[in-house]
Amino acid sequence: MPQMKAAIFVEPGRIVLEQKPVPDVGPMDALVRITTTTICGTDVHILKGEYPVARGLTVGHEPVGVIEKLGSAVQGYAEGQRVIAGAICPSGHSHASLCGFHSQDGAGTRHGWKPLGGWRFGNTIDGCQAEYVLVPDAMVNLAPVPDGLTDEEVLMCPDIMSTGFAGAERAGIKIGDTVAVFAQGPIGLCATAGAKLCGATTVIGVDTVQARMEASRRMGADITVDFKAGDPVDQIMRITDGRGVDVAIEALGTQATFEACLRVLRPGGTLSSLGVYSSDLKIPLGPFAAGLGDHTIVTSLCPGGKERMRRLLNVVASHRVDLRPMVTHRFKLDDIEAAYDLFSHQRDGVLKVAITP
Amino acid sequence: MPQMKAAIFVEPGRIVLEQKPVPDVGPMDALVRITTTTICGTDVHILKGEYPVARGLTVGHEPVGVIEKLGSAVQGYAEGQRVIAGAICPSGHSHASLCGFHSQDGAGTRHGWKPLGGWRFGNTIDGCQAEYVLVPDAMVNLAPVPDGLTDEEVLMCPDIMSTGFAGAERAGIKIGDTVAVFAQGPIGLCATAGAKLCGATTVIGVDTVQARMEASRRMGADITVDFKAGDPVDQIMRITDGRGVDVAIEALGTQATFEACLRVLRPGGTLSSLGVYSSDLKIPLGPFAAGLGDHTIVTSLCPGGKERMRRLLNVVASHRVDLRPMVTHRFKLDDIEAAYDLFSHQRDGVLKVAITP
Amino acid sequence: MPQMKAAIFVEPGRIVLEQKPVPDVGPMDALVRITTTTICGTDVHILKGEYPVARGLTVGHEPVGVIEKLGSAVQGYAEGQRVIAGAICPSGHSHASLCGFHSQDGAGTRHGWKPLGGWRFGNTIDGCQAEYVLVPDAMVNLAPVPDGLTDEEVLMCPDIMSTGFAGAERAGIKIGDTVAVFAQGPIGLCATAGAKLCGATTVIGVDTVQARMEASRRMGADITVDFKAGDPVDQIMRITDGRGVDVAIEALGTQATFEACLRVLRPGGTLSSLGVYSSDLKIPLGPFAAGLGDHTIVTSLCPGGKERMRRLLNVVASHRVDLRPMVTHRFKLDDIEAAYDLFSHQRDGVLKVAITP
Amino acid sequence: MPQMKAAIFVEPGRIVLEQKPVPDVGPMDALVRITTTTICGTDVHILKGEYPVARGLTVGHEPVGVIEKLGSAVQGYAEGQRVIAGAICPSGHSHASLCGFHSQDGAGTRHGWKPLGGWRFGNTIDGCQAEYVLVPDAMVNLAPVPDGLTDEEVLMCPDIMSTGFAGAERAGIKIGDTVAVFAQGPIGLCATAGAKLCGATTVIGVDTVQARMEASRRMGADITVDFKAGDPVDQIMRITDGRGVDVAIEALGTQATFEACLRVLRPGGTLSSLGVYSSDLKIPLGPFAAGLGDHTIVTSLCPGGKERMRRLLNVVASHRVDLRPMVTHRFKLDDIEAAYDLFSHQRDGVLKVAITP
Repeated sequence: MPQMKAAIFVEPGRIVLEQKPVPDVGPMDALVRITTTTICGTDVHILKGEYPVARGLTVGHEPVGVIEKLGSAVQGYAEGQRVIAGAICPSGHSHASLCGFHSQDGAGTRHGWKPLGGWRFGNTIDGCQAEYVLVPDAMVNLAPVPDGLTDEEVLMCPDIMSTGFAGAERAGIKIGDTVAVFAQGPIGLCATAGAKLCGATTVIGVDTVQARMEASRRMGADITVDFKAGDPVDQIMRITDGRGVDVAIEALGTQATFEACLRVLRPGGTLSSLGVYSSDLKIPLGPFAAGLGDHTIVTSLCPGGKERMRRLLNVVASHRVDLRPMVTHRFKLDDIEAAYDLFSHQRDGVLKVAITP
Repeated sequence: MPQMKAAIFVEPGRIVLEQKPVPDVGPMDALVRITTTTICGTDVHILKGEYPVARGLTVGHEPVGVIEKLGSAVQGYAEGQRVIAGAICPSGHSHASLCGFHSQDGAGTRHGWKPLGGWRFGNTIDGCQAEYVLVPDAMVNLAPVPDGLTDEEVLMCPDIMSTGFAGAERAGIKIGDTVAVFAQGPIGLCATAGAKLCGATTVIGVDTVQARMEASRRMGADITVDFKAGDPVDQIMRITDGRGVDVAIEALGTQATFEACLRVLRPGGTLSSLGVYSSDLKIPLGPFAAGLGDHTIVTSLCPGGKERMRRLLNVVASHRVDLRPMVTHRFKLDDIEAAYDLFSHQRDGVLKVAITP
Repeated sequence: MPQMKAAIFVEPGRIVLEQKPVPDVGPMDALVRITTTTICGTDVHILKGEYPVARGLTVGHEPVGVIEKLGSAVQGYAEGQRVIAGAICPSGHSHASLCGFHSQDGAGTRHGWKPLGGWRFGNTIDGCQAEYVLVPDAMVNLAPVPDGLTDEEVLMCPDIMSTGFAGAERAGIKIGDTVAVFAQGPIGLCATAGAKLCGATTVIGVDTVQARMEASRRMGADITVDFKAGDPVDQIMRITDGRGVDVAIEALGTQATFEACLRVLRPGGTLSSLGVYSSDLKIPLGPFAAGLGDHTIVTSLCPGGKERMRRLLNVVASHRVDLRPMVTHRFKLDDIEAAYDLFSHQRDGVLKVAITP
Repeated sequence: MPQMKAAIFVEPGRIVLEQKPVPDVGPMDALVRITTTTICGTDVHILKGEYPVARGLTVGHEPVGVIEKLGSAVQGYAEGQRVIAGAICPSGHSHASLCGFHSQDGAGTRHGWKPLGGWRFGNTIDGCQAEYVLVPDAMVNLAPVPDGLTDEEVLMCPDIMSTGFAGAERAGIKIGDTVAVFAQGPIGLCATAGAKLCGATTVIGVDTVQARMEASRRMGADITVDFKAGDPVDQIMRITDGRGVDVAIEALGTQATFEACLRVLRPGGTLSSLGVYSSDLKIPLGPFAAGLGDHTIVTSLCPGGKERMRRLLNVVASHRVDLRPMVTHRFKLDDIEAAYDLFSHQRDGVLKVAITP
């Protein structure tokens, strides 16, 4: 039984590199040899034990690689082909999938819906911080990488870019909109890029770290607001001449940013939430107009599936957005524990790390 | 100066009938002689001082009447014509109005948006619990009543029906949806009717008052749930075989019903909120899937304007919905203080009262 | 090798009942024993040679039956279960399917789109006018029939009802809309029912056959227009007081009805086309406002997949619409040639026939 | 009675500069002193007598200017303020306007809808190729020009930019879409810019004039197709690897381009038509998939109103798109007849002319 290296969750505080068998390939699966992957904020939640996964599970959900072996029933791909798969791997056949809610895929449940059900890599099945990953429902999930794009150029497609853009898309941004994005970490930066890509003409990025505010402007922000330089709500209301924004995107997952989003939102506006919250949220009565403000609040989990990946690869290939500067650090898979250490402590201005087996 | 009777707000606890001058008619206005009006839950908030209005203001925002006099610039109407106007009277020219958010009409503000700005009758200008009401921006707001419809048949159009239906419409209900409506007061009943009208095939009405649950079934509920017969969340999850509902409509304005809506919602579902809340709301982390459930929360304030009224009058005229049974009590304008007393204490199974000058 | 009876296309003018082997069941398939099926207008096009299919192909695409045997990889179903499948059987994994355009499923093509690609039964694979049918991608396509519903009650779900309703849904019908449906054959009748189900308050059914006009009123038409009693365009413009309709649904597939739809459409309205045309169409300049009328024209092919079927079964189970009267004639499979003779000549007031093996 | 110069339509072939009285200002109007205007393709249709207007009417519908005098009932503006108004001037109070279809404004009709009714300047009322123009419903239509923007920078907002962008917006372009734009005249160029602004990642501009193809790439086209270098349908199908485009925008108004749009459209795609056609259109059966391709065809007339103008001004102010290079020639109002001569004959590579009184 061939073996491979894989980063596995052992217990809160410990993700370690170990040997595991290379997985068997079922009829609908594909085995992908990882060439580059990365670490996500969610992986840090797993590391810390804040999001529980099974002991021994391989973590990681952002695969770039090469098809090593195709399942017997998989058609339309070739071994040796360069591919990515989304962080979310829908089945294609659940009721949720057939409604377009691939992330809430309920395959295996009686009624076909399961919260976060589409997120399988590094959650309910082995992930991709390893030499190989088994991609389920391969015909739904594998997206060929166009020639000429490097691994690092496409490394953000599986999760960060898909999530950040979804924040803009689900908000229904229209040409001429004013949009505020709270927090300019990797997802917030992609939301900023996505807002511009959807036609927003005043994009306001909120953060305080200098490097992130610069990145924000490079990714499409027209204005950046430093939340330590004064209440960001006041600053944004001043920028918008008292009107507020059409869309506010939450990209951190805290009460403060969620609430600030609502406070800068004009009546009839949309709060698009991307953050992963860790406690109950409060909706303040006043900014919510006591429920009479015609507001919309939408939440989004990273969209997946090969059609989503194809579209994001188009964005990269057309140079609409350049996400390469987001890769600030590079590690060998053998050094992944050091990568976790750097990334989880947000040292050295890290945005994203590239991991190569 | 001709005088008229009008129900005016004096101080918390006191709405009284007094004499006031019949208003002057500006170029864009219409003076309407009220033939029937009603009392809304919002008026009770005003009565109790929970929603502040100016001392001396005529209350009421649900007018059915006859055009007494048209402003010099108003075209397309005739004096003597039977009309209604919505509770919400948009200007037609604010940025909010031009975006279709008539209820958040910011006419007069620099940027054109104002929370609840379209609600003028009995809020920022004199309302219609009086012998006459002055309708502003008459060409935007007056809707002729088709011959053959009685005042009571159309009395719910200006507010209750428009609001309740909006709960269903803004939720994007689709053919085959399962919808739960929490609370079966006048607005909840209209939301129930609206959900069925939009194609929902399992409409679940939640209340505990026997008469309201019967009304719920008459208005379109397939199933009613008595929240005193067990946790309504459990009951609904059982009815839906663990799946939850596609859309949950909140029609009361409390933490308990808001939260129950979220708890019965499938991932990717929509919580459509109609209630007027009186304190901060809490979003519980679990049912909110920590922000990753692809949920949508929408709030709606009663849509207004003559086109909205025309559509609702079509609903009445086509007998799609019969709201006459909602009028449970009738009063002369002279007895409006007694009407407030009955309605504000929800005595005698009252749903809605008809007031005729 | 077990044999079964099947209605096969031999040559233009000849569909005959013959013996064929019962098909083998692949890993993703399900073999369904047909208990009831029907003949569609499209089958008549095939019979006449107007739509070419392979010689020897089993025709028919509206299956009601019982699962006889499940493929090795199929989960979530049981042998012996009563099911239907849609006329359209998407793969779930093509780019078209993942975009929600299941009917244009391009599984097997390089880019994932193929016109009409989702229509497989009786078109590119053997259909269901037979004792057994093999359902491909069973987990995407099989929908369990709720207990208590008869075969005839659900017989319209796979095609007629899904198509007719789509005419209303794709048009974005809103509460209070006025809708005209041109032709009240089986699909037009379902479009009429669908328009009402979506909230239209004035539904106008156009035909001339007395029985169909009566059926139209039973299915939800408020008014019927006999196109032999005067130009139907004039009649509808009179009914709508010169305004025209918000939505016009074409349910026949001719230049005359397509053009009439455009002529009764208000500016900004939607023409929803369901017909199968047999020659180029002409868009007349005037009614099209020279291209400046903000019109929308949408075409729809019958939506399929198990989630679509589930929703339509909900409609039937909730008694929102009763399609049983559409079954006007019944035949044994052994007599299917006689059924084709009756149906293709539209004799004896036939709407739909039920065929039982 | 003060006089002004105005370009008036005399008879087919003759638009001449004459003296006319400066108009009186009604209560809802504003008199605007024109500082810059331009000539539209539609004006050439009027010149040629292809689109009939009243003899003596002042032509032109793209005003940039300064408020000279406000009507007595107009609030929120100041005399001396720099403004633009859209080519389309909605009333704000017709049923069409209240539905958001401002271009089909039926103010004055019984039912509230009129094809092209929102187009008043130079069509049903005096236009702006003059020293002054009277803007009706001023509070609906006047948009202040931000300081720092020149007349020429905002000159395209009233018509060309609003129309071209609408071609992209109404098509529902999504991130990652492939879009073809047929004809790269002023409107096609704006549609190209609009498609990119909405998130399309492969924008294909079709023309043959070298300067227009260069302009196309500057405005956002990723690829240009010269229709004289081979059948553009074949070229586009090759570029898209046989898949076709998600959206095809028609920006010329001919059968050839309309039909080419349909031929390059994938199933389920949208044909967005902007052209003004001069004869009946033919829909070819094959590319239309006999009506079963789930296609959408939308037409758009230039959106107007102050909110639309505000959004377009945002686009200019944020430098998302730079339309200044579209002004290729400049004329004094006194020389407008020469400007018409140049523009109508499309001499000297003219795209748009700036006219200054």
